[in-house]
Amino acid sequence: MDDQRVLLAMLANRLLFVYVVLSQGSCSVSVSATDVPGYKTRYVEVQVDHFSFANPDTFLLRYLVNDTYFKDGGPIFFYTGNEGDIEGFVKNTGLLMEMAPRFGAMVIFAEHRYYGQSMPYGEESFKDPAHLGYLTSTQALADFAVLITRLRKTASGAANSPVFAFGGSYGGMLAAWIRMKYPHLVAGSLASAASIFQYPGITDCEAYSHVATRTFQRSAAGCPGRIRSSWDIIDDLGKTGAGLQNLTSMFRLCERLTADDMPALVDWLVNLWMIYALIDYPYPANFLTPLPAWPVKEACHLIVSNEDVLSGVAAAAKLYFNYTGQTACLDISKPYYGGLAWQYQACTEQIEPICSDGVNDMFPAIPWDLSAFSEACYERWKVRPRPHWAVTEYWGRNISAASNIIFSNGDLDPWSAGCVLKSLSDSLVAIVMEDAAHHLDLRPSNPADPPSVIKARAQEADIIEKWIQEYRAAGL
Amino acid sequence: MDDQRVLLAMLANRLLFVYVVLSQGSCSVSVSATDVPGYKTRYVEVQVDHFSFANPDTFLLRYLVNDTYFKDGGPIFFYTGNEGDIEGFVKNTGLLMEMAPRFGAMVIFAEHRYYGQSMPYGEESFKDPAHLGYLTSTQALADFAVLITRLRKTASGAANSPVFAFGGSYGGMLAAWIRMKYPHLVAGSLASAASIFQYPGITDCEAYSHVATRTFQRSAAGCPGRIRSSWDIIDDLGKTGAGLQNLTSMFRLCERLTADDMPALVDWLVNLWMIYALIDYPYPANFLTPLPAWPVKEACHLIVSNEDVLSGVAAAAKLYFNYTGQTACLDISKPYYGGLAWQYQACTEQIEPICSDGVNDMFPAIPWDLSAFSEACYERWKVRPRPHWAVTEYWGRNISAASNIIFSNGDLDPWSAGCVLKSLSDSLVAIVMEDAAHHLDLRPSNPADPPSVIKARAQEADIIEKWIQEYRAAGL
Repeated sequence: MDDQRVLLAMLANRLLFVYVVLSQGSCSVSVSATDVPGYKTRYVEVQVDHFSFANPDTFLLRYLVNDTYFKDGGPIFFYTGNEGDIEGFVKNTGLLMEMAPRFGAMVIFAEHRYYGQSMPYGEESFKDPAHLGYLTSTQALADFAVLITRLRKTASGAANSPVFAFGGSYGGMLAAWIRMKYPHLVAGSLASAASIFQYPGITDCEAYSHVATRTFQRSAAGCPGRIRSSWDIIDDLGKTGAGLQNLTSMFRLCERLTADDMPALVDWLVNLWMIYALIDYPYPANFLTPLPAWPVKEACHLIVSNEDVLSGVAAAAKLYFNYTGQTACLDISKPYYGGLAWQYQACTEQIEPICSDGVNDMFPAIPWDLSAFSEACYERWKVRPRPHWAVTEYWGRNISAASNIIFSNGDLDPWSAGCVLKSLSDSLVAIVMEDAAHHLDLRPSNPADPPSVIKARAQEADIIEKWIQEYRAAGL
Repeated sequence: MDDQRVLLAMLANRLLFVYVVLSQGSCSVSVSATDVPGYKTRYVEVQVDHFSFANPDTFLLRYLVNDTYFKDGGPIFFYTGNEGDIEGFVKNTGLLMEMAPRFGAMVIFAEHRYYGQSMPYGEESFKDPAHLGYLTSTQALADFAVLITRLRKTASGAANSPVFAFGGSYGGMLAAWIRMKYPHLVAGSLASAASIFQYPGITDCEAYSHVATRTFQRSAAGCPGRIRSSWDIIDDLGKTGAGLQNLTSMFRLCERLTADDMPALVDWLVNLWMIYALIDYPYPANFLTPLPAWPVKEACHLIVSNEDVLSGVAAAAKLYFNYTGQTACLDISKPYYGGLAWQYQACTEQIEPICSDGVNDMFPAIPWDLSAFSEACYERWKVRPRPHWAVTEYWGRNISAASNIIFSNGDLDPWSAGCVLKSLSDSLVAIVMEDAAHHLDLRPSNPADPPSVIKARAQEADIIEKWIQEYRAAGL
C-alpha cells in the first residue's frame, strides 16, 4: 500500500525499463465524496513553498481526524503521511487508534503533499518541474508543522495537547525528521521502518539485498540458492526464441517476451523477491496485494519443492500476482505500485541506493550507477538528483543531538538495513522485532502477531506515556 | 555596520516613510579585487533553492578563510554571516581570530546570500520576487550547511574538524539556528545578541523600547524624560510655518521641512535613539558611524546640560551624524543603513515587531500594525509577510530540545529584549554582560572593555573547549 519504495531500487539500476514503467503511470487526482469511517475530513491551507517567497501560491492539504477518544488536553497522535493517499494509511495503521483510549488521544492522519487529494496544482500538479518541484520531504515536514500549529490553536481542548508523531517506512522517516527539525511541536516520535540511514555514503548499497536474502534463507534454507541459480537459467533462455517462448508461457506473461525484454523480466523478478521480504506478514494481508500468511515461506515452499528451479520461481510469481485467482496473465511492464509522485522524489532528494553483487545475496549483480540514474531522471522529469542533500539536511548517521524518537524495525524487512537498529541514548530508542516485516508494529493487532511485536507495542506505549509526562512536567 | 535591523522597527510602524526610504536604496553588486588582509577569498557553488526542484539554478557564495593558526584536525570557527558584506563582519568581529591560536582553529567568514558578492542573480538579484524570493534565513542556513560539508571534504586537515559557529545579531540567530537545524555539522554555537525570541506572540513588542529607555536612563537619569518631552514640542512646532523653519534650522536639515515630513522626522529621531542604545560601546568605534566612547552618555550629556530640550536633542543628533565634522547638513530621508536586502527579509519572514507606548518608554506611542505593514511590503516588494512562520520554523520559545548554544547578551542592547537571557540547561547557556551594547563580546578586544565582557569571553572560550572535547570524545 504505502510502499512503492522497492521500485526505487530498480529505478537506480535498470533505467530504461523503469522509464517505460514510469511513463505509463497515472497521476489522476481522485476526490472521494465520503469520509473514512470514524474520521472527519479536514483541510488546512499551506504554502506551496515554505522556504522562499518567489512563489506565493497556497493549497489545501487534507487530513483526517478521529476524536472519538479525545479528552481535553489529551495528546494528539499525528501520523505523518507518506507516499500515498492518506486513506490507505488509516486502513493499514491500527496502532494509533488502538492506543487512543488509553491516552485520551485525538488521532490525526495528515496527507503528504502531491498524494491523494493534496495536490498543490490540482490536475496540473505533475505537469512539469514548475508544478512538481515542490514535492520534497522538507516542504512536507513544513506542511505538518503548520498543521500542528493550527490544530493546537483551533481544535477544541487541544491548546496544550502534547503531539506525538507516528509513521512507517518513508512516513517513519518523516516522523523522525519532524522531531529532529521541529522538536517544539512534537513531544516525541515513533518511527517504524524508518530507513533514515539509507543514503549515499552512509549505508552500503548492498545491505538491503543482504537482509532480503536472509529473510528468504530463514524461510527455507535452500530458497536463496535456488533463486540465485535462476538468473543464469533465465539468461540462457533469453538467448533463443524457444527459450523466450518457454519463459513467456512459464510465467504466463501477457505479452510474448523478446530478447529486448530480458532486463525488464529480471528487474521484475528482483523487485518481486524484494517485495516478498518486505511484506512477509504472519497473517493473510492485503498490503500491496492479497497474500497468504508468511508469504515468503509460501513462495519458498513453491520454489524448493519444485524439482525445476524456474517452475518454482514462476509459481512464486503467480502466488504474488494471482493469489485470488483473478489475474488472467502477468504483466511485467505493470509497476508494482502505480504512484508517480514517489518516483519523482526518488529522482530528486530521496536517493537511497540499493545494489546487489550476486555473491553475498541471491540477486544478479546490479551495481549502483548514479550517472545513468541521473540521466534517466532528467529525461523523465527534467530534474537532476541531489544525491548528498538528504545526508546534509537530515544529519547523516550523526543524530545524537536528537531526542525522544523510537526507531522500531522488523528483522525480516530489507529496509531495516538503513534503519537505526541500536539505541543511541536513553531517548533515541531502537527496537528490533524478531520475525517482523515492514512496520508490522503499526498494523492493526492480529492474533498471529509474533511475541516480539506484541512486546514492542507495549514498550512503545510506555515510552510514549513517559515522554508525554515529561513534556507536561516541563510545562512546554 | 551589520545593523540596519533598527530600521525594521520603523518599517513596521511608519510605512510610507520607510517606503520612500527603501525606494531610494541601492542594490548594486560590488566586486572587490583584493582579499581582506589575512584572508583568502573562496566561493562555493550552492543551489538557489535547496528545498524544492522547481528552480535548478545555482550560484557562488563567497567565504573568507584564515588558516594562519590552523593545525590538522583543529576546529573550524565558522562565522554565519548576516545582513551585510562579509568583509564588514571580519573587521568588526575580533573574537574568532583572537581565540584561533589557543585552539589551532581555521577561521571562516561565510557571506549571507544576497549580500556583498553573494548574489544569486547578479545585478538582477533585486529585480522581482522571482529573483529575490530565495532570500530567506532557511535558505542561508542551507548554504552554510553545504559549505561546512564541503569544507570538511576538501580543506586539508579538516576532515574531522569540529565546527563551531559564531554570529552576532541576525548572524547570532543564524548561529543558534544552524545548531538547532543542523547539529551534526556544528559542535556548538556562540550566538551573541541573537534575538531569536523577537517574534509575534512570543515577545511583547514594547520590550525593545523599554531596554532602550533603560540604557538612556542609566547614562543620565533625566535623559529619557527630556527625550519624552521632546515629542510634544516637535509636534507643536510642526503645526506652524515658523515652527517648521525652527526645526529645519535647529537640526540643520538639508531640506526645508514641510508638515508632511513630520512623521518622517519623528521616525528619524526614534531610530536615532534606538541606534544610540545599540552601539553604546565603551570606546570610540565606527560601527554604523564614527562615534566617541559611551555615545549614549555623550548624547545624554548634551541633552540634559542644554536648557532647551530641543537644542539638546538636536545636538545629540549632530553628534551621531557629524562627529567627524564632515557632514554639511542632516538628511532625514537617508536611511541609517543602506542595505535593501534586509528590508526584504523584514517584509517576508523576519517579522520582529517593535512598538512603544510613550508612557513606559521615552518614545512616542507607535503601535504595531501588521495589516498596514503588509500593505506597504506588498506595494514595495510584491510579497506579503508570513508573520508566524519564523516561530514555527525556529521553535518559538521552546528551544529546550536544542543543545550546545551560548547566548550572550549586552544589557545595554535593546535587542536583548528578544534574546535568551537565562540558561535553559547545562548546554543552553545564557551570559548577560553588564554595561555592554550589541554583541560587544564579538568585537576586537579593547582596554576599555568592561569586566563583564572580559569575563564572558573567557567563559565562552572554556565552554567552546569543553564542547569541542565532548564532540571529539563522542567520535563524531
